[in-house]
Amino acid sequence: MSAINVAILGATGAVGTRMIEQLEQSEIKINQLKLLASPRSAGKTKSFRGTTYTVEAATPESFVDIDLVLSSAGGAVSKKLLPFAVKAGAICIDNTSAFRMDPKVPLVIPEVNPNDLDWHQGIIANPNCSTIQMLVALAPLDQKYGLRQIVVSTYQAASGAGQSAWNELLDQAQQHLNGNPETASILPVSGAPKHYPLAFNLLPQIDVFEDDGYTHEEWKMIHESKKILRHDMDNPDLKVTATCVRVPVPVGHGESIYFKLNQNPTVTDLKKTLEAAAGVTLQDDPANQLYPQPITAEGQRDTFVGRIRPDYENPGSYNFWVVSDNLLKGAAWNAVQIAETLLQRNLLG
Amino acid sequence: MSAINVAILGATGAVGTRMIEQLEQSEIKINQLKLLASPRSAGKTKSFRGTTYTVEAATPESFVDIDLVLSSAGGAVSKKLLPFAVKAGAICIDNTSAFRMDPKVPLVIPEVNPNDLDWHQGIIANPNCSTIQMLVALAPLDQKYGLRQIVVSTYQAASGAGQSAWNELLDQAQQHLNGNPETASILPVSGAPKHYPLAFNLLPQIDVFEDDGYTHEEWKMIHESKKILRHDMDNPDLKVTATCVRVPVPVGHGESIYFKLNQNPTVTDLKKTLEAAAGVTLQDDPANQLYPQPITAEGQRDTFVGRIRPDYENPGSYNFWVVSDNLLKGAAWNAVQIAETLLQRNLLG
Repeated sequence: MSAINVAILGATGAVGTRMIEQLEQSEIKINQLKLLASPRSAGKTKSFRGTTYTVEAATPESFVDIDLVLSSAGGAVSKKLLPFAVKAGAICIDNTSAFRMDPKVPLVIPEVNPNDLDWHQGIIANPNCSTIQMLVALAPLDQKYGLRQIVVSTYQAASGAGQSAWNELLDQAQQHLNGNPETASILPVSGAPKHYPLAFNLLPQIDVFEDDGYTHEEWKMIHESKKILRHDMDNPDLKVTATCVRVPVPVGHGESIYFKLNQNPTVTDLKKTLEAAAGVTLQDDPANQLYPQPITAEGQRDTFVGRIRPDYENPGSYNFWVVSDNLLKGAAWNAVQIAETLLQRNLLG
Repeated sequence: MSAINVAILGATGAVGTRMIEQLEQSEIKINQLKLLASPRSAGKTKSFRGTTYTVEAATPESFVDIDLVLSSAGGAVSKKLLPFAVKAGAICIDNTSAFRMDPKVPLVIPEVNPNDLDWHQGIIANPNCSTIQMLVALAPLDQKYGLRQIVVSTYQAASGAGQSAWNELLDQAQQHLNGNPETASILPVSGAPKHYPLAFNLLPQIDVFEDDGYTHEEWKMIHESKKILRHDMDNPDLKVTATCVRVPVPVGHGESIYFKLNQNPTVTDLKKTLEAAAGVTLQDDPANQLYPQPITAEGQRDTFVGRIRPDYENPGSYNFWVVSDNLLKGAAWNAVQIAETLLQRNLLG
């Protein structure tokens, strides 16, 4: 594996910071590292494998001699800059929603659909954080038993909306504890007309609303799941619906998932399949009060699955509870893992 | 309506305190008020309609001349003391789970099944907080379109586990903000072997686990829903499954509910039906970011419903989001409302 030149676009954000950390911990050999961000963040420094790097303002000319771009600077920035990176010969792994549903762009979770990397044309999309952890848990069951339906309710952490939303949650919590009114200027959606406190509250809005009453986040989960599990081809009967809710947790999304299989395996069968699945840690021992929690998932790369139960009145239908670090498997780690997989498959470097 | 003698059992708890407030605001004329609690709380004082009352230790002899008992001191206390109250001639409205599934005890939400009050034999059970708000929202749809299936994921507030759990959440939040480890000695379940922090976390355990992996809380939602909606008689096809999760919110349960109807009404039809339903406030205007939130539901008697959406791939199936004050409609107000309904029906006083 030869050393490669890597650029991180959005290097100062919550995800970008973790991309640097995950890259540092990976086996990827790096020759040149370029940290790119908005002009506002230019000049900041970051340490990587013992060397200090200065953040530069990203421009269309930033990608000369770059082999790999990890991008998490927002959809508009990706749309504007990644075509220049591709033209300069780089492979781009994009964590925004800009290219996810583009039929020419593979949408990849390495444990689930690594073969989709083979047909990339320069851009590979990282799925939405909520989609990734759901499919890491469901894909092994789909492969073995055939997945027919998903009904998901999410419990999503503030950091999914960025570092500023995370900070806002903590500020509001302190305001509340001090007996003061909570101030809100970011959540539920930055730039939306109305803002509400998240601390000690629940916000059933993630991303903007579509005209049909679903949020963009909910449609992302629906459409991305079908693309990744190849609904249109191998899996024509998969139906998906979602309700996405922001909860006052800094890091770690929870998901309550109801799913229907073609077959009717026992819970023991499901547990065995999940125990053997890559990227899954089973935490399902009710007698010992063992189940996934955000505070134990934070900082981990795996997706944690527990509370597996049959719906006794609907054979073949089940409930389970899934938690993962939305900044790692939901973003930075999945992106770096895609890069590692590209290298293993000789598709990069 | 003649004045009645009322005893409140568990008068110093989070629910008992609100029972006193809700009773104070009701039109029920009260002759004698007796505040009962554990010996530990005896001697405390509470104000009611301008008079100060001293809390007494509850004993089997406490119910002489009492017409109505509102009880919320835990299942064991209800089991021990309410038979004495019935023998003394009182009607008991019990907020614990002690008698809910007893076939001789009506389980009543006044908006949903007031006629079940007619066959009471001294004890009337208040349903579980999560069940009440779900059925206030679903029963009008069941009556009009026939309810076939419920898949519910709850987002339950700390106060559902009592005032001490609420205090623990706030203490933990301050510990976290101070950079200290969070201490836990109550949640998820008082007296359980393990305790976990709820602040900035999610706990997928409410009440103890059954051997089948479901929690007692989840089975309560399933069994109580069927009893209240008369599954065995009028509604043989109703299937219910539940996942119950505690969230770091002081007051106000959220519920993400997926439901299937016999018919296929439009969302406009559903909204009209819910707008006309007793005890429901529709908050469903995505364009103006209007949807139910715990912080706006707290202190209100109604159940708030929003985010109503069809599952486009399963005609007749829908998602919605329901929030209510778990201490009011979920407990104290539902109990006082039962008392008001008894008086209106000449079943009391």
